[in-house]
Amino acid sequence: MLTLARARPKVSLTFSFPKSKFSRPTTQPRYNNFSRTFATETPQPKPRNRLLQRAVVLVKYTGYIAASTVVGVGVVTAAIFVHDAFTYTERHVDRVPINPLALHPERGGMKNLPIARVLVDDEEDEEMKKLVDKPKLVIVGGGWGAMGVLQTLRPGDYHVIVISADTFTTFTPLLPSAAVGTVQVRSLIEPLRKIIARLRGHFVAGKAVDISMHERLVEVEATGMDGKSEHFFIPYDKLIIAVGSVSSTHGVPGLDHCFQLKTVADAQAIRRRVMDNFEAASLPTTSPEERKRLLSFVVCGGGPTGVETAAEIYDFCQEDIFNYFPKICREEVSIHVIQSREHILNTYSEAISKYAEDKFKRDGVNLITNARVAGVTENSVLYTARGPDGQMEQHTIPTNFTLWSTGIAMNPFAKRVTDLLPNQVHKKAIEVDAHLRVKGAPLGSIYAVGDCATIETSLVSHFMEFVEEADKNRDGKIDFEEWEFMVKQITNKIPMAEDHVNKAREIFQMYDTNGDNVLSLNELAKLLEDLGSKITSLPATAQVASQQGKYIGKKFNKLARHQERASRNPEATTDQAQSNNVLDESVIGPFRYFHLGSLAYIGNAAVFDLGKYSFMGGLAAMYAWRSVYWNEQVSTRTRALLMIDWIVRGIWGRDLSRL
Amino acid sequence: MLTLARARPKVSLTFSFPKSKFSRPTTQPRYNNFSRTFATETPQPKPRNRLLQRAVVLVKYTGYIAASTVVGVGVVTAAIFVHDAFTYTERHVDRVPINPLALHPERGGMKNLPIARVLVDDEEDEEMKKLVDKPKLVIVGGGWGAMGVLQTLRPGDYHVIVISADTFTTFTPLLPSAAVGTVQVRSLIEPLRKIIARLRGHFVAGKAVDISMHERLVEVEATGMDGKSEHFFIPYDKLIIAVGSVSSTHGVPGLDHCFQLKTVADAQAIRRRVMDNFEAASLPTTSPEERKRLLSFVVCGGGPTGVETAAEIYDFCQEDIFNYFPKICREEVSIHVIQSREHILNTYSEAISKYAEDKFKRDGVNLITNARVAGVTENSVLYTARGPDGQMEQHTIPTNFTLWSTGIAMNPFAKRVTDLLPNQVHKKAIEVDAHLRVKGAPLGSIYAVGDCATIETSLVSHFMEFVEEADKNRDGKIDFEEWEFMVKQITNKIPMAEDHVNKAREIFQMYDTNGDNVLSLNELAKLLEDLGSKITSLPATAQVASQQGKYIGKKFNKLARHQERASRNPEATTDQAQSNNVLDESVIGPFRYFHLGSLAYIGNAAVFDLGKYSFMGGLAAMYAWRSVYWNEQVSTRTRALLMIDWIVRGIWGRDLSRL
Repeated sequence: MLTLARARPKVSLTFSFPKSKFSRPTTQPRYNNFSRTFATETPQPKPRNRLLQRAVVLVKYTGYIAASTVVGVGVVTAAIFVHDAFTYTERHVDRVPINPLALHPERGGMKNLPIARVLVDDEEDEEMKKLVDKPKLVIVGGGWGAMGVLQTLRPGDYHVIVISADTFTTFTPLLPSAAVGTVQVRSLIEPLRKIIARLRGHFVAGKAVDISMHERLVEVEATGMDGKSEHFFIPYDKLIIAVGSVSSTHGVPGLDHCFQLKTVADAQAIRRRVMDNFEAASLPTTSPEERKRLLSFVVCGGGPTGVETAAEIYDFCQEDIFNYFPKICREEVSIHVIQSREHILNTYSEAISKYAEDKFKRDGVNLITNARVAGVTENSVLYTARGPDGQMEQHTIPTNFTLWSTGIAMNPFAKRVTDLLPNQVHKKAIEVDAHLRVKGAPLGSIYAVGDCATIETSLVSHFMEFVEEADKNRDGKIDFEEWEFMVKQITNKIPMAEDHVNKAREIFQMYDTNGDNVLSLNELAKLLEDLGSKITSLPATAQVASQQGKYIGKKFNKLARHQERASRNPEATTDQAQSNNVLDESVIGPFRYFHLGSLAYIGNAAVFDLGKYSFMGGLAAMYAWRSVYWNEQVSTRTRALLMIDWIVRGIWGRDLSRL
Repeated sequence: MLTLARARPKVSLTFSFPKSKFSRPTTQPRYNNFSRTFATETPQPKPRNRLLQRAVVLVKYTGYIAASTVVGVGVVTAAIFVHDAFTYTERHVDRVPINPLALHPERGGMKNLPIARVLVDDEEDEEMKKLVDKPKLVIVGGGWGAMGVLQTLRPGDYHVIVISADTFTTFTPLLPSAAVGTVQVRSLIEPLRKIIARLRGHFVAGKAVDISMHERLVEVEATGMDGKSEHFFIPYDKLIIAVGSVSSTHGVPGLDHCFQLKTVADAQAIRRRVMDNFEAASLPTTSPEERKRLLSFVVCGGGPTGVETAAEIYDFCQEDIFNYFPKICREEVSIHVIQSREHILNTYSEAISKYAEDKFKRDGVNLITNARVAGVTENSVLYTARGPDGQMEQHTIPTNFTLWSTGIAMNPFAKRVTDLLPNQVHKKAIEVDAHLRVKGAPLGSIYAVGDCATIETSLVSHFMEFVEEADKNRDGKIDFEEWEFMVKQITNKIPMAEDHVNKAREIFQMYDTNGDNVLSLNELAKLLEDLGSKITSLPATAQVASQQGKYIGKKFNKLARHQERASRNPEATTDQAQSNNVLDESVIGPFRYFHLGSLAYIGNAAVFDLGKYSFMGGLAAMYAWRSVYWNEQVSTRTRALLMIDWIVRGIWGRDLSRL
């Protein structure tokens, strides 16, 4: 037998710190036990040689780590490649079991369209077959809200169908980075089919265009054969609307000349335009005026998206354009941010706004605050702002790139849903109750989450309900005890009111105008109305959508458990418990939002608003910003890709290719 | 001073191999010197514990390597991030020096267009200024040929301008992989500006559309402000045409329904269509017939591109579609390869063709050989092939994806150049002499390389020249001695003739029909004509283009050195040496092509044709195929990206997103 036995070359690491109050008076190694070998094999060196010796040791150690790294990386790579080799399988399927109904769906519904009651993959294996009889849970949309649901749901409870025109989910907060190539768009997306696979769910690549709540059918428009549009119905037992929002025009003319930044396609289009502008600016035929306009980048909206995009464009010019384009291109770049309020990032703390504004000022980014965009043309942005004499003045910025990143409006499907329901009066989103049930829809059948939904804040609309339950003595007046009960009712109904009713006594006294220690119904109505107007609706952010999605996922898990128990003890289910509505409220309380903080990248620096604390700064904050986003990734794959993108960008800079 | 000294825990590695003819009879450690510590500190274990001990040691060692790897990777990442941090610089430029002529170029030339004699970045720093007076070397194109030149040229000798519509160079051999997402398109491209930076060259994003050889001006069409097309002239002293080719239609109708695979945009379009087809095939409204057609992939052309694309589509279905789409989609996939010759990969060795065909047969890829594509419609491919009774029969394959990958034709600029020159008769490319000079153009001013060029193979057109030089005794006849001289002339003029004239005596005797030991001029003419027709032109491959580019680069380096010497000793330069033509031939011999072999990926296997040897096989060959391409990368960046893509695909599979 051939035996190779090698002892590891001995290496020891010695840290030394300058003398400080923590230093110990002894030069004896502290861990005698560990240093035995060191002590016996290497004689204690003379003091003058110590530095040298340590240097040698450090070099050895570094070399060793490096060698191990190379070996380790090599081993890992080899392992992946071996694994890789075995993904090439010879497996194939013959005669997949298919229900004939899946191949020739019956027609029906109000519009007599094909109804997909059975899908082609419903019976392809045992696991799928088990799901056929489960409640049909249809999720419309593939963004943060849908992701929250999909990641929280337990497999096996529902027959899940996701309807989305995009076949992937997008990590939207990094779109500004993708717009200039700091990260690749493909690192921000994860195929929905892969996410749904955990639930053995189904995916339909199409967009929901209509709904029949009575028949529980969603109408889907999809691109079929040869690009022709196909319409069909997907039946549901439970429907979750998570379609997001579109940009609001605020009535500004010419917004079709603007870019938006809501999808990866937008990010790609922006990247192409930015590169186009720099290439055109470098042409020999471009006049100095044209060059100025080509290199003028205007961002309308001083919220996080606008600010981050401006910062990323600045970074791109500073780090990449500078090195590879004619220097004149870098010199002529101007970046403008037009904000309607007094400060950018106005939803953040004041200190943060100030910090971001100072940073932009240092970078030469042109901040235009208190200004209203009056219109956008093909080659300029018009805005009005108060001049030094207090008069409103109109200004024009010539530009070849305008980003519109302010305000949201309803997606057509969300609009259609509100149009069908009589009590939906909100203009910008579908109104839902505190349990995220769409108001007015058959109870327990339709939910809405994320940007497309807004939780009702009107207390006065529940006036009669509150009084009926609280007015125990039926005297048509509310005394303080009854009011305290009502406060509980209110926070239960609308948790967002919590902050405003916690000083119950003060409020009671304030609205008890005649001082008779009871609130008349008039006084109560006034109180509820004022209170309702104080509640601000939740912002249209990824964080809200995600939490709402997870809430719905949890609720549905509990409902499934409840149904299971009920089916085991049929006698225990009362009529009341079977009512979807009550069930829904009994398994889980209303949705409560926990704000985890806001953050924004502002170019070699980042800001965090954590409610009571703000944190802002340069590099450290930037890396903190990156790690927060890194941790929020939907999959390990995108996490790895993002890390790779950041490393690649660190070594080689951004890709300048116009693709 | 606080000193922490730790000795490394001892770990030793023991490899053992089963007894074999190489085993040694001794159990003594082989390297006594290295195993000293082992021997003294660890007593020789009892045999029955050895296995256990080795296992422990192995685990320890593995753990150690893993830990070091993590630390090492962490350190490297941290280092990159620290470096990253310092790419955010505050540097900026103020008042870049610009020649006024660069801002307002004069007009001129036949078409009175702006002439870019001075560029905006010509005077931006000292290094650039030095290049202004150097010869203007204009390269049209950014593919393999251009890359060969750019990577070989020495900085400082020429004022280099690259004109290309694409702002990047593409690693074309991996386009089939990119077409299904095995690698990302951005991993195949490198921005030309980064490559040119080494030479402090200039880049113009536009396409050459015309040329005035007399005035030495190339007309460029570029996209300027607001998408309008700009025309201007770029002056040159030396012009290198490397514009590549377009696909040949072979007169087949309906090719606008086909995909091609020459650019990354093509690869992206194919990827989108493939995903579209699978998504459409999964819709509930798709009928079984439609599904069959949507999942039928037709490749016209059995060359490497066609074969590799078919193989990649097969891989994609087998590895990714299988897991995430309804199984029926995988079952219904059909892949067809239509080849006009008897075998696919017909330029490779017979064994390779056979191997690839067997592999495809096993995979169920439908090979249709000896067939002619008669036409392509929106939803089918028509072809004719001989039926079992020997009659030509017409067949139809319903399909929603057709790739056309057979034959090349002239790019419009190449066509324009040949139209301007009277002696350019070749139909598919610009004819160049053995020194790659465009035939008929002012000598030493225009060169062409790659797919757009073909080296003349006609010997008979040099008949008079050969005779004049070889017929020493002026008797109008060529004796054997004179013929031997002529052979040297021929191989000098047209190195590709070498293989055909090496048996000089045999050829002489064969054409000396009357056996008088001399060749009459008639006999000689016949000989040259036959010989010329035997020489095959070089294939339109990346390898040829790259070698031609490098040859031109070397030539230009030598010309620059020669000019330098000449300018130092003005008296040494004779009239003759100053003639570009003679100079060109004196600094470097004619271009000689060295075929390094052909390779192709055929799905979990690869084939190599190395001239005399063929090599084919499964995994090992596939990794060999990958490593060849990996080594040929233009930059470390694309090399890293490719490696990452392969690893990512190994771990997570291909991205299924339709983007």
